Amino acid sequence: MVTHDTIGATMRPVPTSATVVVVGAGYAGLSAALALQERGVEVVVLEGSDRVGGRVLSEDLGDGLVVDHGGQWVGPTQPNLLAAAERFGCETFATYDAGRHLELWSDGVCRRFRGSGPLDGAGVAAYDAAAELIDTMAAGINLDDPAATEHLEEWDSQTVQSFFDTAVTDQDARTRLALSVQGVWTVEPRDISLFHFLFYVASAGGYEQLMETEGCAQERRFVRGAQSVALAMADHLGDLVHLNTRVTGIHQSDTGVQVETERGTVSASRVIVAASPGAAVRINFTPALPVARHRWMERSPMGDVAKVHAVYDTPFWREQGLSGQATVYGEPAVGVVFDNSPPDASVGVLVSFVYADRLHRWATLPEEQRRAEVLSTLETLFGARAAAPTRYTEKLWPQDQWAYGGYAANPAPGVWFEHGATGWRSPCGRIHWAGTETAAVWNGYIDGAITSGQRAATEIITEIAALPGHAG
Amino acid sequence: MVTHDTIGATMRPVPTSATVVVVGAGYAGLSAALALQERGVEVVVLEGSDRVGGRVLSEDLGDGLVVDHGGQWVGPTQPNLLAAAERFGCETFATYDAGRHLELWSDGVCRRFRGSGPLDGAGVAAYDAAAELIDTMAAGINLDDPAATEHLEEWDSQTVQSFFDTAVTDQDARTRLALSVQGVWTVEPRDISLFHFLFYVASAGGYEQLMETEGCAQERRFVRGAQSVALAMADHLGDLVHLNTRVTGIHQSDTGVQVETERGTVSASRVIVAASPGAAVRINFTPALPVARHRWMERSPMGDVAKVHAVYDTPFWREQGLSGQATVYGEPAVGVVFDNSPPDASVGVLVSFVYADRLHRWATLPEEQRRAEVLSTLETLFGARAAAPTRYTEKLWPQDQWAYGGYAANPAPGVWFEHGATGWRSPCGRIHWAGTETAAVWNGYIDGAITSGQRAATEIITEIAALPGHAG
Repeated sequence: MVTHDTIGATMRPVPTSATVVVVGAGYAGLSAALALQERGVEVVVLEGSDRVGGRVLSEDLGDGLVVDHGGQWVGPTQPNLLAAAERFGCETFATYDAGRHLELWSDGVCRRFRGSGPLDGAGVAAYDAAAELIDTMAAGINLDDPAATEHLEEWDSQTVQSFFDTAVTDQDARTRLALSVQGVWTVEPRDISLFHFLFYVASAGGYEQLMETEGCAQERRFVRGAQSVALAMADHLGDLVHLNTRVTGIHQSDTGVQVETERGTVSASRVIVAASPGAAVRINFTPALPVARHRWMERSPMGDVAKVHAVYDTPFWREQGLSGQATVYGEPAVGVVFDNSPPDASVGVLVSFVYADRLHRWATLPEEQRRAEVLSTLETLFGARAAAPTRYTEKLWPQDQWAYGGYAANPAPGVWFEHGATGWRSPCGRIHWAGTETAAVWNGYIDGAITSGQRAATEIITEIAALPGHAG
Repeated sequence: MVTHDTIGATMRPVPTSATVVVVGAGYAGLSAALALQERGVEVVVLEGSDRVGGRVLSEDLGDGLVVDHGGQWVGPTQPNLLAAAERFGCETFATYDAGRHLELWSDGVCRRFRGSGPLDGAGVAAYDAAAELIDTMAAGINLDDPAATEHLEEWDSQTVQSFFDTAVTDQDARTRLALSVQGVWTVEPRDISLFHFLFYVASAGGYEQLMETEGCAQERRFVRGAQSVALAMADHLGDLVHLNTRVTGIHQSDTGVQVETERGTVSASRVIVAASPGAAVRINFTPALPVARHRWMERSPMGDVAKVHAVYDTPFWREQGLSGQATVYGEPAVGVVFDNSPPDASVGVLVSFVYADRLHRWATLPEEQRRAEVLSTLETLFGARAAAPTRYTEKLWPQDQWAYGGYAANPAPGVWFEHGATGWRSPCGRIHWAGTETAAVWNGYIDGAITSGQRAATEIITEIAALPGHAG
């Protein structure tokens, strides 16, 4: 999946000029380029790595089995990704959600339940109450202009951990909430501000949307992997996409922008930076960016996540009435597990997520020990057969030299308050900003990446239309 | 001061090999190189910018007047900087501290006091009690191994703002504390964790050390500017220092390190990265650094500070019994002012500090408005003569393309807990880490930079001594 036929096979020369240069060929950059192309604007996409898709990366393991090492789901309230999938004929199918889910607690006891969560048990009622409080507070976020939110300073001055310490007295509920933060933000509650947490909840349309499967963000998967839509977009753009073309500098003047790459310089009227904040901050901008935008990027580190796929001859857990979905509290590296088998269930696949503090410890182990630890947890959950997969793959996103982590970048405490008004996504002269972190709706998700690229393209189309004679 | 005779005048070729490459010619890198040179270890220093000194930058305005745009003070408990100054014959003199200090509050009233602080007034008693509490807590920091501090997780999971909100009920005392955080850390209390705050206090030897002049960190200044010591160190190293040599990549293998620059590649046995975290994180490390070190650097953004110098024919405020020292609460850009006149008081100089939120607003103004605002505050403090300086200079550190801010980098909440054990300064194979942010004592100060370089050099000398035949 990583490469496709029409790009990358040869190193075509990078053009010396274009009306708009798009930096980055993830979903944001590709969506921006498509929107510009459709309006007849001359555009070129420069991608540093050897593939498109960004933090979405599918691998074909053969025999029709595709695994998603990065973003993989689409939900019913994500119309932009669904529309792109439909346009390019990329089929989806329901995430396997039948049977009982498992919960493994530090006492070693494995509990089973059906539906969206256990109906009773340690901390469940207090957790549900906290979720309700979170939704009530998130309703106070001004999604049109987050920096204009009434409680911005108060909420951005405290960590989520401080909020939990104050607002949630039940220790088991706090443990459940911490795992939710790990799973959705790939950080610990101490790492992000209450404001960013609530913004993200509001951006998704509510706490349940982030956490659940049916009707929510994890509802469906892509038959050929989530990268397939990006590959189709790149196919459509054809020669406009240049891989292996790292942008090292962006020089802005009154008359235009010079985009420096390791393969030559491109002159342009406008540029859209659609790289992740961690990659964008490494570009040498001259003159220096405004403090607000620079600090926004610099102080928005990526979360830490790894995805581990274990492949089996069959999804044997289904025979035992298990969904393959599990939540693991306490020490183990694995935080949650999903059934990631292909639609025809010709083989069984379990995907384990390792994130935040769990990843920090696990990533220091040799590969052999990392594997042993994950399989040991799977064995505890699903029995002896889980210990002997036919295939085992890992993708440690923090060590990816283009994304620097995943799923998304999380502004540190204080960043929204100090720099949100303009640093979040306001254009800096001829430089426009895309990427899922600049989305108001489904921030951090593929759908948000798509709309962010479309928004940046619209900004430029509007500007160009206002110029005399429509010249760039 | 910026350049000196023996380096930079010509672009000497960068050598193709050295036993040790030092990246960065600030006080840390220069101190490391001196220590290695003295032990006979072949060393080369690669500096990206066109000068040495890093975040210490002195400018000769003529007629014997030198202003310090960066770090400028030395205190009596900073023996390493004092020793370097003595070795190279760089004289110091006492910061002007006679007369009454001023406090300007939001009500527009300017209050006068002598000594280290007002004896009474709004919030003074509660502020003093808070400072005592802070010192008591800071005594619990394990400076030998900060990550082993008993309350690490608790203190690193909350912002300083949350701590003030809980521990300090007097609103005026909170206002005083906030200004102290701005002045010393160049951030707001919402930006850093309680742990990093307490670590920094412990590292300096107590809260008073950070805040005061006589007997403390702000006690003395350098006759020829604080950069003069760095320039003398570089003179001593001579041809070993290469300016205008940006390091773009560091590739480590079992047999050595390749240090890639824009002027060629240097092969070495070991490398010391003595760049600021903000600059170091932009180096392309292959293989990828361990997650702990990468995140440590990425999640330690520089503070935001600008220094503004206004020069007058005489230090006229002294005639009025004023020290020139002032503290400004509320809206104005200027947070604190010091008398920065030369030792002979041949002219009068006021230096104003603009930092954190104040800088974020002020930096967006055109230069003319920035100047008008600073001078307006000086006029309120010192009278009409202050509004008409003969010279006016600004240095906005966040827009410095090498330092990316100042004074120092501040790990975000969670970073010490998650990555402090190894990410702080543990060598990564052949890569060693220096810079004031890696110092246990006087972290963030020039003295800490010097010891950090010496420590990194000692690490390597010890390693080399343990090798068969002492070969690198």
